[in-house]
Order: sequence, then C-alpha cells, then structure tokens
Amino acid sequence: MTSHPAVRTPQQDRSRATRARLLAAAVDCLAELGWQGSTVSVVAERAGVSRGAAQHHFPTREDLFTAAVEHVTAERLAAVRTHADELPAAGPDRTRAVVDMIVRLYTGPLFRAALHLWTAAATEEALRERIIALEGHVGREAHRAAVEFLDADESRPGVRESVQATLDLARGLGLANLLTDDSVRRSGVIRQWAGVLESTLRPVRP
Amino acid sequence: MTSHPAVRTPQQDRSRATRARLLAAAVDCLAELGWQGSTVSVVAERAGVSRGAAQHHFPTREDLFTAAVEHVTAERLAAVRTHADELPAAGPDRTRAVVDMIVRLYTGPLFRAALHLWTAAATEEALRERIIALEGHVGREAHRAAVEFLDADESRPGVRESVQATLDLARGLGLANLLTDDSVRRSGVIRQWAGVLESTLRPVRP
Repeated sequence: MTSHPAVRTPQQDRSRATRARLLAAAVDCLAELGWQGSTVSVVAERAGVSRGAAQHHFPTREDLFTAAVEHVTAERLAAVRTHADELPAAGPDRTRAVVDMIVRLYTGPLFRAALHLWTAAATEEALRERIIALEGHVGREAHRAAVEFLDADESRPGVRESVQATLDLARGLGLANLLTDDSVRRSGVIRQWAGVLESTLRPVRP
Repeated sequence: MTSHPAVRTPQQDRSRATRARLLAAAVDCLAELGWQGSTVSVVAERAGVSRGAAQHHFPTREDLFTAAVEHVTAERLAAVRTHADELPAAGPDRTRAVVDMIVRLYTGPLFRAALHLWTAAATEEALRERIIALEGHVGREAHRAAVEFLDADESRPGVRESVQATLDLARGLGLANLLTDDSVRRSGVIRQWAGVLESTLRPVRP
C-alpha cells in the first residue's frame, strides 16, 4: 500500500488519456454509424488505439458504449455548469435561455448516440439492464440540473411535472431532429413553452 | 377498359387481405425485433404468407416496412376518429382526454415500430429519403387530428406552437416508455400539460 492516489505516474496519465479518447470516439461512432456499425474495432481505430488496449479498458462492447454515453453526458452537464454565469439573470429571458440550452443537449450528437443505444437495448438483452440503469441515472442528473438552472421550487403544485415535461419535450424535439434539420419549427415551440413554463414557475399574482 | 373498380373479384379480396396481414405483421415484427431482426421472411412467416407472395406485394424490405408504418398509422387515426364521440364535450376534461389519447398513440407498439424504422433510417441510405417523406406525412396528419380534437384555433398567438409542442411531448414520452413502464410518472406530466394547454387554447379573460 505504498501508492498515493493523488500522485499519478506518466503511465497512469497515458492510460487515462487513452480511456478518454476511446469514450469520445465511441459516442462519435454511435452517433454516425448506429449500434450495428459501432464495434470495438471501429472505435479503437478512430481513437488511434490498438484493439487490445481498447479491450483492456472495456472488456465488452456493452461496457464501452454504456460508459461512453455516461461519461460524455457527465462532461456536457459539467460544461453547462461552467458556462452558467453566461446565462441571463432570473426572469423570462433566463427561462427561455435554459429551455434552449436543455433542448440543445437533446438535439446534438450525444442524443443521437444515446438514441441508437436505447433503441438497440429494446431488442438486445445484453444491453437492456445496463441501459435502464443508465437512463435512470442520466434522467435524475438532467432533472437536477434543470431544477437548478430554472430555479424551480418543486414544492409548488405542478412545478415538478413542468420540469419533467420540459425534459420530455426536449427528448421529443431531439427525435424530430434526427433525419432533418428541424431548427426553425423548434425555435417557435421553445419560445412558446418557455413562456408557459415561466408562468408556472413564477406566476404573476393579481 | 372493361373492369369496374367497385366490383372486386374474390381473388382481389384475397390479395387485399394478404396485403393487410403483411402490413400488420410487419409493424409487430419491427416493434418486437427491431430493424435488424425484421426481414421480409420473418414477416411473411408471421403473416402466414409465402415469401414469394410477400415479395409480390412488396418488392423490397424498405417498401414493406415503410408501407406498414404508414398503413397502421392511418388505421389508428381512423380508429381514433371513429371513437371521437366517446370523448367528453368541450372543456378541460376533453383537453385532458385528448392529450391522453395522443400520448397513447405514441407509447404503444406502433411508436416502437416507427422508432426502430426512424433510427435505422439515420444510418441506412436506402431508408432515409422514404422515411423523411413518411415522417412529413405522418406529422401533418397527426397535427391535423390534434387541431381537430382539441378544437384549436391556430390563428390565435401561440396555439399552433402549443399543438406542435403537445406532439413533441408525446414523442418524448414515447421514448421514455421504451425500456420501462413510465405510466405513473407520465400521468402526472399529462395532467399538468393538459391544464396548461387548455389555458393557452381558451384563456379565461378577466
């Protein structure tokens, strides 16, 4: 027990960097090629890593892709938190900006990758239980972030359901953007929902 | 030009029945097995039809599954219209029942089948253009039905976007129901959404 976790050797740093490259490449592959086309070999090649090294980090294909979607989701949420001070201060403009930000998380390559994984899990037993666990985890994290950014008081009636509806709406908008660029229609939907959400979160009393 | 389209021979009737059986079986297969597992042979077997007969009706796999999702969607919308008189009369109860009905269309096997087809189309060129056309067609029909059942006046500000948002929400709720039974959470979201939608459709003036 002489190792000290805070001091990393160059080898540990390299291993960590390899792992990160594999995870990022896995999400890119899933988003572009879907589940059928995304094998460990394809990901290893894209990451510039040998197949053996890839399998050292992730023994199975299911390990690799589940870890990838989890890791990249955590990264995106962290990035969103880092840029939180660029959002408008409290009020309708902030709510609009937050809804827009949430929907952007669900209309990019990460959502596309997750969608391929979810759809594959619907018919592949080896994925199913892991993706159900991942879905629960990602869903809770996304909900927590939405509550925080919207400054939503979930003890008020309808607020919790409205935050959930915002995430469900974002998921639906992500699906509508899968095959075609839906951005023009989407911006009208976002504007309308953000207005409604703001009046639920902070109703103007007569 | 001696044939008369209104008089069908027994052979035409049989052919029509075979086609309908193939279309229904195709949607069931897609919903259960996904795109990879759904071949023309698997569908033909489930429909109790020879592979040759299946190919006579649908020369390619893409023909069969695109036609199936289109046909079953039209059937469901027709069924919904048939039962329209069972809905409550105008008011909040009707809006709630209509939102519930729309969401039910997006949380059953038909949505599951469509999701597999959409996801496959994201990476398969042979499907892509057809599914984009189908998505446009189905989207317009669903929107038209929603406007009709909600008695929505789209000339009022925000109404068109709110109807669109309702369909996007339904799609997101369908996705959330893919791997687990999400019905309890969903009913809270539907209740909240229907209340908000009703105030947008028919605001109470002071």
